[in-house]
Amino acid sequence: MVEKRPARRPGGRSARVRAAVHRAVTELVAERGYGNVTVGEVAARAGVADTSVYRRWGSLEALLTEVVMSWLTDQSPIPDTGSLRGDLRAFAAQVARDVTGPDGLAVVRLVMALSAAGEEGARARDAFLAERARQLTGMLDRARERGEEPPGMLEVVDHILAPMYIRVLFGAGPLTPEYAEELADRLLPPPAGPAVS
Amino acid sequence: MVEKRPARRPGGRSARVRAAVHRAVTELVAERGYGNVTVGEVAARAGVADTSVYRRWGSLEALLTEVVMSWLTDQSPIPDTGSLRGDLRAFAAQVARDVTGPDGLAVVRLVMALSAAGEEGARARDAFLAERARQLTGMLDRARERGEEPPGMLEVVDHILAPMYIRVLFGAGPLTPEYAEELADRLLPPPAGPAVS
Repeated sequence: MVEKRPARRPGGRSARVRAAVHRAVTELVAERGYGNVTVGEVAARAGVADTSVYRRWGSLEALLTEVVMSWLTDQSPIPDTGSLRGDLRAFAAQVARDVTGPDGLAVVRLVMALSAAGEEGARARDAFLAERARQLTGMLDRARERGEEPPGMLEVVDHILAPMYIRVLFGAGPLTPEYAEELADRLLPPPAGPAVS
Repeated sequence: MVEKRPARRPGGRSARVRAAVHRAVTELVAERGYGNVTVGEVAARAGVADTSVYRRWGSLEALLTEVVMSWLTDQSPIPDTGSLRGDLRAFAAQVARDVTGPDGLAVVRLVMALSAAGEEGARARDAFLAERARQLTGMLDRARERGEEPPGMLEVVDHILAPMYIRVLFGAGPLTPEYAEELADRLLPPPAGPAVS
């Protein structure tokens, strides 16, 4: 006799499966680097059937996209401290923490994996970059509304994010709090000179 | 009857084998990303026996090291134009060319692969980074000897090299000559103000 399972599972189990699958993806990419992970391996690590992963996410790329997008919003939110200096410093410190931890590095590798994974991967990569760009633009717009002079969004990417990502990817040098702060301060407008008396 | 081959081959053939093996490594890493290339595949692509590769290079990591080191000196030499501005601009333009071409991106991926390939990989990665650092330091020392005020070596890495590497690795945006020039100019000392009359 074949036992029929309910087609929809209660939210609690669904959320647990999602968390286990996200964790499995992050761990496997951290362990092996990108390009070496299959849906079967993710499912095995998460303790669910391959078919469950395919049914829910459709493809490995769709799953990877969900993982990086939820990481962006849940694990690595954009700061809002009330000043440009505070926001840039908090953002730099957070990037340093993110890419030093195993999850953050796994996410960086995931985004690179997506970039090299055909058309669907490129769409997922674009969604990730667009969301991060939207978050950063919001932070810089808040500074502008306060009358500050923020740098452009791409300057933040090029001169805070890129140096730290490259140092970690190349295994070159520690990301100290002082280093993160220095990267942030480079993007602040130079202090005004003393008023002429 | 077993025919004995000469233990050492003439230089011409040796150089051709070396070039073919280097090309095979670069192509395979460009096609597949790092972590997915074996000595057997390199040998097959280069048209030589596995044993020839092992005999000559000892391991895949040793071979990868030779490839990235020879790329550094042969394909991507450090400029010497006679001025700091000229050198930084030429260096930035060259990095843009390098990482836009398939070979340069393959080399970037190779260095990341080495960073994730255990102790021997880490040694190879360190050799690569030390050689690049030595070349860059030479360029900045020449500027200092001319009485100019060059940035630090790590500033060149962080603010010229890293932004372009990350843009290419994430597939984000073109590396135009104007962009490369702007990255270089950020590292020049600010122009002196007009003399007070």
